[in-house]
Amino acid sequence: MTVRFAILGAGRIGQVHAGAIASVPGATLVAVADPMEAAANHIRDTFGAEVRSIDAIEGANDIDAVVICTPTDTHADLIERFVTAGKAVFCEKPVDLSLARVKACLKHVEAAKGTLMVGFQRRFDPDFNALKAEIDRGRIGPVEMVTLTSRDPGPPPVDYIKRSGGIFRDMTIHDFDVARWLLGEEVSHVMAAASNLVDPEIGQAGDFDSANVILTTASGKQCTITNTRRASYGYDQRIEVHGASGSVSAENTHTARIEIADANGYHRPPLLNFFMSRYTAAYAAEIAAFVDCVSNATTPPTTGHDGMMALALADAALLSVAEGRRVALSELI
Amino acid sequence: MTVRFAILGAGRIGQVHAGAIASVPGATLVAVADPMEAAANHIRDTFGAEVRSIDAIEGANDIDAVVICTPTDTHADLIERFVTAGKAVFCEKPVDLSLARVKACLKHVEAAKGTLMVGFQRRFDPDFNALKAEIDRGRIGPVEMVTLTSRDPGPPPVDYIKRSGGIFRDMTIHDFDVARWLLGEEVSHVMAAASNLVDPEIGQAGDFDSANVILTTASGKQCTITNTRRASYGYDQRIEVHGASGSVSAENTHTARIEIADANGYHRPPLLNFFMSRYTAAYAAEIAAFVDCVSNATTPPTTGHDGMMALALADAALLSVAEGRRVALSELI
Amino acid sequence: MTVRFAILGAGRIGQVHAGAIASVPGATLVAVADPMEAAANHIRDTFGAEVRSIDAIEGANDIDAVVICTPTDTHADLIERFVTAGKAVFCEKPVDLSLARVKACLKHVEAAKGTLMVGFQRRFDPDFNALKAEIDRGRIGPVEMVTLTSRDPGPPPVDYIKRSGGIFRDMTIHDFDVARWLLGEEVSHVMAAASNLVDPEIGQAGDFDSANVILTTASGKQCTITNTRRASYGYDQRIEVHGASGSVSAENTHTARIEIADANGYHRPPLLNFFMSRYTAAYAAEIAAFVDCVSNATTPPTTGHDGMMALALADAALLSVAEGRRVALSELI
Amino acid sequence: MTVRFAILGAGRIGQVHAGAIASVPGATLVAVADPMEAAANHIRDTFGAEVRSIDAIEGANDIDAVVICTPTDTHADLIERFVTAGKAVFCEKPVDLSLARVKACLKHVEAAKGTLMVGFQRRFDPDFNALKAEIDRGRIGPVEMVTLTSRDPGPPPVDYIKRSGGIFRDMTIHDFDVARWLLGEEVSHVMAAASNLVDPEIGQAGDFDSANVILTTASGKQCTITNTRRASYGYDQRIEVHGASGSVSAENTHTARIEIADANGYHRPPLLNFFMSRYTAAYAAEIAAFVDCVSNATTPPTTGHDGMMALALADAALLSVAEGRRVALSELI
Repeated sequence: MTVRFAILGAGRIGQVHAGAIASVPGATLVAVADPMEAAANHIRDTFGAEVRSIDAIEGANDIDAVVICTPTDTHADLIERFVTAGKAVFCEKPVDLSLARVKACLKHVEAAKGTLMVGFQRRFDPDFNALKAEIDRGRIGPVEMVTLTSRDPGPPPVDYIKRSGGIFRDMTIHDFDVARWLLGEEVSHVMAAASNLVDPEIGQAGDFDSANVILTTASGKQCTITNTRRASYGYDQRIEVHGASGSVSAENTHTARIEIADANGYHRPPLLNFFMSRYTAAYAAEIAAFVDCVSNATTPPTTGHDGMMALALADAALLSVAEGRRVALSELI
Repeated sequence: MTVRFAILGAGRIGQVHAGAIASVPGATLVAVADPMEAAANHIRDTFGAEVRSIDAIEGANDIDAVVICTPTDTHADLIERFVTAGKAVFCEKPVDLSLARVKACLKHVEAAKGTLMVGFQRRFDPDFNALKAEIDRGRIGPVEMVTLTSRDPGPPPVDYIKRSGGIFRDMTIHDFDVARWLLGEEVSHVMAAASNLVDPEIGQAGDFDSANVILTTASGKQCTITNTRRASYGYDQRIEVHGASGSVSAENTHTARIEIADANGYHRPPLLNFFMSRYTAAYAAEIAAFVDCVSNATTPPTTGHDGMMALALADAALLSVAEGRRVALSELI
Repeated sequence: MTVRFAILGAGRIGQVHAGAIASVPGATLVAVADPMEAAANHIRDTFGAEVRSIDAIEGANDIDAVVICTPTDTHADLIERFVTAGKAVFCEKPVDLSLARVKACLKHVEAAKGTLMVGFQRRFDPDFNALKAEIDRGRIGPVEMVTLTSRDPGPPPVDYIKRSGGIFRDMTIHDFDVARWLLGEEVSHVMAAASNLVDPEIGQAGDFDSANVILTTASGKQCTITNTRRASYGYDQRIEVHGASGSVSAENTHTARIEIADANGYHRPPLLNFFMSRYTAAYAAEIAAFVDCVSNATTPPTTGHDGMMALALADAALLSVAEGRRVALSELI
Repeated sequence: MTVRFAILGAGRIGQVHAGAIASVPGATLVAVADPMEAAANHIRDTFGAEVRSIDAIEGANDIDAVVICTPTDTHADLIERFVTAGKAVFCEKPVDLSLARVKACLKHVEAAKGTLMVGFQRRFDPDFNALKAEIDRGRIGPVEMVTLTSRDPGPPPVDYIKRSGGIFRDMTIHDFDVARWLLGEEVSHVMAAASNLVDPEIGQAGDFDSANVILTTASGKQCTITNTRRASYGYDQRIEVHGASGSVSAENTHTARIEIADANGYHRPPLLNFFMSRYTAAYAAEIAAFVDCVSNATTPPTTGHDGMMALALADAALLSVAEGRRVALSELI
């Protein structure tokens, strides 16, 4: 069976997913929808898809699955429409910035017995998967501490920041998902600190650019997350997991695997500095996993529930910063 | 001028300092005191010092400086006695487990215009100093985030734990001092999480064995500290400092700089697994710095105030865990 | 312009090139020829090419270029036929195992004003290219010494060894080409040592499995090449270039960028252990470079002359081992 | 028993050995001899030794062992005098620049049943010892190939070059000794290439500054040695040993274990750039081993025979360069 796709939203991330669909066996891109004609035509010309309206895709018989890459405030509505229309749905995170709206949407998906996969591409990165596999085979014993370092090369435009829901809902949300994935036990409490060190405009927009979070589980496992919006040396993405009998870590990805030695010392190139080049393989593997779910009618590896839990952790972190206290996840979920 | 030393307390750390004094130009070890005759004799035989009583050392004309390596609950009293006796005093951390007692002791030292250096050997480690020098020369721009990873190879005996003041006052205290040294700005708030994952007996003794701490300063700088009492791979001591224009990190020290490649992959030896072998050079440099202060009548690089501040941070961390909230240092100092 | 391709020879390397052609913009795979029907059909089914005879491809109007992946002893004849037929030719190394035959073939290509690119994929590896770029921008000053380490995970079947022309013509030939590329000056003399340490059957077949070579140029630059047919830890491919003001090196590629620490030390996974996975990106870039040459009627980056020179160096190395002496390349070319 | 030492020659290396003797338990420095009064006095003042004449030391009853650090052309004579006088002798390499003179001297030592240790400090380096220990415990299987990279930070003065016996006898000689130590089988043949790339004055003095050597053993084991007199990044000292089931390598020693990341990439400090700082621990361990031999009347780990063999390999390399051929060691020994 070949899964026939439509992409809703032909922006930057839509193009990434179009490329992923083109490269995955068992998937074909049939249609694309975007109010921006030029963006839609670009996908049409590059990947041979038809440009259609969202309504036409909703009613089409030749579409099995949609990838939602539209602005965040349309995600929940589109998810509901398309599961109702019987399409399998892959939606970029987040489902919505409001936890209440997310809950309602997931209830709708459940009632419709729809298939919904939420995009957390880091779980599909080959190196992070190799790390997870070592944990799963017991190589480090029971997990005790997870350390996530996640630093953007530079801050997004302040306009984006304003619509993003803030650093915890936009950036840390990926780390929250990775933490849940690696801890192997649900997070119970959240403590967070946040400040403005990178750009005062971000602060004026009501957001932070530098943050640290401590997550704890009922059994006492702990996770720290370190975020900043500025790393001069590229897109810094590290994981370290400490267990009772060992640790495992995943290294960063440099632009080239070379080293120069000279009178000033030893020098390696900076890191890949864009999430799309850093996670190219992860995006392709993510779509392949979705195709696999649709073909075999199995549960997606990253569900709407995962999307909701990561958002709840973001809300808890924000509350912790505001009130200077440890926040129980049960206050929010 | 040669600084003439006596060592009070001939245990493990006393022997380290005796060796350091023997290796430092401008210092000579004259006497040692310890109620355990064998321990004192060992230093006598190895380094050629006389065994004397503490009282005799207090009144001696041939002693310029003492190194206090006795049990913690005697530190404050001995500091007061020996500054009153006109000796320069080097005291192993902590001055006392009670912040009030520390304050009183420091007041005494100040009134006596005494010289007091408190032992925080990590500031004298050659690699950590190289890291600090890069920060000081502006190599990474203004400091924004400090990440300290500090894991012991294994927990101390539970008996020791009971007398130690707990993980924050015994183990994290070194990280608190390093944080203050590197942040370049006083810490204003503390959040901490702690749990028992390594050994239930530690929990039964009222202490924790796994902890994470977030420190923040008034301007928004942040520091995270990760501690556990068990690291299968050795004594894990890492520092990473992130600044506006770069990061600098200090690596761990392995037992040898070799690597083996075989069918299972690439393998390097574990870390040095004892604080005395890991910090041998640091202990020697620390005593050399003290000798320098005494010879030149300058202020020690790590003072009683530093000892007090690190203890206050430990108390704040404990309070944060107990009350699940962000604790202001001003509540304690 | 789209370059229309046929592949001659549908074996392992033919499939690699078919995949490369499919992934390169401006190239399309039209036909494939192979006496083994199953192999040809596999490429047909995977990439949508027609199966044709070599004769049919030779006379076809819808083919601009051929990729020769047939057995070595057919290369020179096919090159001559297809340049005569006006096709651009990409041929896997070597052109022939006989230097005389190679010279005759190149004369034919020159007379026909044909386009011939010989496959030395390492020059197209992204990391090796990054290394070369640093040399070219003067980052290490004038090149003085090149050190090439090239170890296969395991020996090929002895049957293959017998037809391969031996370790220098089959394996070291890639290092000879890389040496010429990096030295920036033609090699003048060759010294080599070779022995049998891996498999006595290889010795019985008249070949070696372990070899070291020193190349020198007229101005005194030197290159060492270290080869063995067995590396337990994977496909070992390293380059180090030492210049007057610095060195630059390219690291190996591991199966994942993770590291595990446990009581036995620090462990990373072994290397990719197959040339096709190690050089996937290089093969694609190589075909892209060929497409570029054909489209723009420019000289290929790796020519028939390069193929001849690498073979001459292999012959010189063999002569050096046999006669125990330094061999001048001028004895052979 | 305490071994009572005299040092003959108070230059740079004499001072290193004086410091080593002072730090080794079971050894004491009694006397020093040097025609340069200032040099001898410096050792006297630093380490508390008496200044005496060589004749006085030869006849002294309070001296058990001498360390010969005088100019090379005096070594053989002094060895003979002092073994005759019943002293244990430690002599810096080489015994002499003439192989014939070395042979005669060793015959003398043997006849006198003297104790002679020749200084090859690299065998005592902690990292190289860790590497050797892995080989000895079978961790990489039978040794097949040894790769030695040895590059000086900068060339010595041309005046020194003229007296040194040339690059092979002065610099490569250490690598020849390490090769013999690690191959575990005597070298049978030598091929070498050498040129002038660093400094034309070195060439005018009849020497080379850049060299590569291939050593082979009867069973086919191979070793390559890469030398240059200039490495901008410090004193480059690497060993890699490849065996049937794995490889083991020893890394370089940097001035500090820190790394900086910035917009230009990742940066580590250069290497220690002087043999005395790089091999401080090795020199101390070497003297400790000699003290152990003298105390226990055992054979030294590096003997006069080792000195002779390394020199023979140097002579063979020189002959190989001159005649452009593989030289059998049996031609020289």
